[in-house]
Amino acid sequence: MIPFNKSFIIGNELLYIEEAVKSGKISGDGIFTKKCQSFFQEKYQFPKVLLTTSCTDALEMAAILSNITSEDEVIVPAFTFVSTANAFVLRGAKIIFADSSIKNPNIDVDKIENLITSKTKAIVVVHYAGIACDMEKVMEIAKKYNLLVIEDAAQAIDSYYVFSDGTKRALGSIGHFAAFSFHETKNIISGEGGMLVINDQKYFDRAEIIREKGTNRSAFFRGEIDKYGWVDIGSSFLPSDIIAAFLFAQLEKFDVIQNKRITIWNKYFHELKELKDKGFIGIPQIPKYATNNAHMFYIICKDEAERSNLIDAMKSVEIYPVFHYTSLNKSQFYLETNESIDYINAEKFSDRLLRLPFFYELTNQEQEQVISTIKYFYFKSRI
Amino acid sequence: MIPFNKSFIIGNELLYIEEAVKSGKISGDGIFTKKCQSFFQEKYQFPKVLLTTSCTDALEMAAILSNITSEDEVIVPAFTFVSTANAFVLRGAKIIFADSSIKNPNIDVDKIENLITSKTKAIVVVHYAGIACDMEKVMEIAKKYNLLVIEDAAQAIDSYYVFSDGTKRALGSIGHFAAFSFHETKNIISGEGGMLVINDQKYFDRAEIIREKGTNRSAFFRGEIDKYGWVDIGSSFLPSDIIAAFLFAQLEKFDVIQNKRITIWNKYFHELKELKDKGFIGIPQIPKYATNNAHMFYIICKDEAERSNLIDAMKSVEIYPVFHYTSLNKSQFYLETNESIDYINAEKFSDRLLRLPFFYELTNQEQEQVISTIKYFYFKSRI
Repeated sequence: MIPFNKSFIIGNELLYIEEAVKSGKISGDGIFTKKCQSFFQEKYQFPKVLLTTSCTDALEMAAILSNITSEDEVIVPAFTFVSTANAFVLRGAKIIFADSSIKNPNIDVDKIENLITSKTKAIVVVHYAGIACDMEKVMEIAKKYNLLVIEDAAQAIDSYYVFSDGTKRALGSIGHFAAFSFHETKNIISGEGGMLVINDQKYFDRAEIIREKGTNRSAFFRGEIDKYGWVDIGSSFLPSDIIAAFLFAQLEKFDVIQNKRITIWNKYFHELKELKDKGFIGIPQIPKYATNNAHMFYIICKDEAERSNLIDAMKSVEIYPVFHYTSLNKSQFYLETNESIDYINAEKFSDRLLRLPFFYELTNQEQEQVISTIKYFYFKSRI
Repeated sequence: MIPFNKSFIIGNELLYIEEAVKSGKISGDGIFTKKCQSFFQEKYQFPKVLLTTSCTDALEMAAILSNITSEDEVIVPAFTFVSTANAFVLRGAKIIFADSSIKNPNIDVDKIENLITSKTKAIVVVHYAGIACDMEKVMEIAKKYNLLVIEDAAQAIDSYYVFSDGTKRALGSIGHFAAFSFHETKNIISGEGGMLVINDQKYFDRAEIIREKGTNRSAFFRGEIDKYGWVDIGSSFLPSDIIAAFLFAQLEKFDVIQNKRITIWNKYFHELKELKDKGFIGIPQIPKYATNNAHMFYIICKDEAERSNLIDAMKSVEIYPVFHYTSLNKSQFYLETNESIDYINAEKFSDRLLRLPFFYELTNQEQEQVISTIKYFYFKSRI
């Protein structure tokens, strides 16, 4: 059986959990939470990192920090996970969906400007499969209209955007806020887990307060104030230090994990290129302004029926690929209060994109089985 | 050094985390999440239990399920943790604070009815220190005015309410919803963590949806629907199965933990009773309708100054007791939009209550040091 995903232990995960417990403190902001936050701040020059219980929660923090109210509109790609939208709906926002690019599932940046009204407060971009959106254009539009930019970087750890002057910056460091995920399906995992990156210093203090249930407890522990109390809205966005301990053990093996994933990705790419060249399927293309973090390998089938047949063929030999998001403009929740619109590209990816098994412990032999099963499916008519 | 609290491993915590990882799935709703939920459903006859990332998140789920809007008022005790109020403020509610009873920090049930208006939608009660509020009276008022009751049972695992007919029911099973905590300071711990108990079947389906980011994914995995999608608001309230694995190992030692805690509690009670009888301090009294889960042992000092002196005296010998909530009616956040009111009892507990070191690994010798330090503090003037 070859599953789509499989969780793994790679180093000191259990040892560090034991260490965290022995430190006497396994609630949020323990020793391993601080180690993880420092790791990311140093590695990617993120000005401020706060671990959260999930990427969803990091997006919710960004929505609160953006002061989203029921008067505001937020532009969100239609092809994304529900949390990208829900985090802002919870604050009352009206969601304005944008279509995907024709080339990949990311937001079509050329269609953003038409969606902006006097009520628009923020643009949320999703770096799908860890491949950068065209951030130079996004930030230019945001600047022109004075909008906040939130990067949903759930899948985008260790990916970069290459600016037109040749400099590159880590995804998550470009917008005002970014949300990352350590869900078990991501490159680096803690089961559930996430982090918020804050790139503008003016939000640092409030972010700490919101994350600590609306109290100024963090400032209290730093000795900046005498007593802490209720000063704002907020929630419990802190993960247990058990989660951070697990995560930190994975971070110590960051390069090992990434090297393995890049090998897997490249093998899929080179082996399936033949099918792409013959016009059977689409495969990911990395734009010149993006780098590849080997988060995901997907193929684009001819249509939904072909994808279903391929899934069936693979399941018959116990290989479990999975499709992805239903374009949110077609969701029951959206259609309850909005008219149906068609987003051609987003719906194409909803109907035709298929994600192949991809995890750290995937063996070469297993991967060859996946590849040969797909090749057989497409070539069998010719044999 | 005797800290206020210390996290601990008691059995198979690390083994079960390893097992969870080896199962291939450590995101939410894995094998250990289901084991924990079943444990509580069976032990306390809770109709439906859902693990959450924190008690705060369980309260937020209760607020969403209660359909709280900006038109609603919610009655909340002033002496409580910020999350009891914030969970409802996040949905737009106006918080109406109630004073504590004169006898203990719980809500004064005789003062609730006066606070009810046509806008009141829910009453939140907090079973402080695991000691039941007078639930028979609370439910009678709720029924009369058609209000929802949410039990903030953060500290109340394994506590019961004894009805006037002599029957008893677990705290958390009496209101419409209840929120429990497994924060490291609680009897049973997972660092951060919580659970929502739902006592009315009509909320079961929506609870699962809200917890799964507003999708009907749970029904999909049970095979009840073909495809899952966005159907409601929601968040990621599910803890990683790493957390559930840790928690389940603690649940297997439930009686061992509780027996130890009851021994500690009783020792504090019997040893400090002398100070109480001589009028120096107050100690907890268990009402006839309540049972004792040995969550906390507190003393009530004569005034805030005396409490500060006692804390200093204890710190000087490296013992770290801690006070508790600042009464929320005096918080900066509340006073920004409300007039200052005095809640005599709540403020008394804010100023005078002191929690003594209390954790599973507290040794007899350490406890005797705590007790003798307190006794010396009060008797030294006479020696």
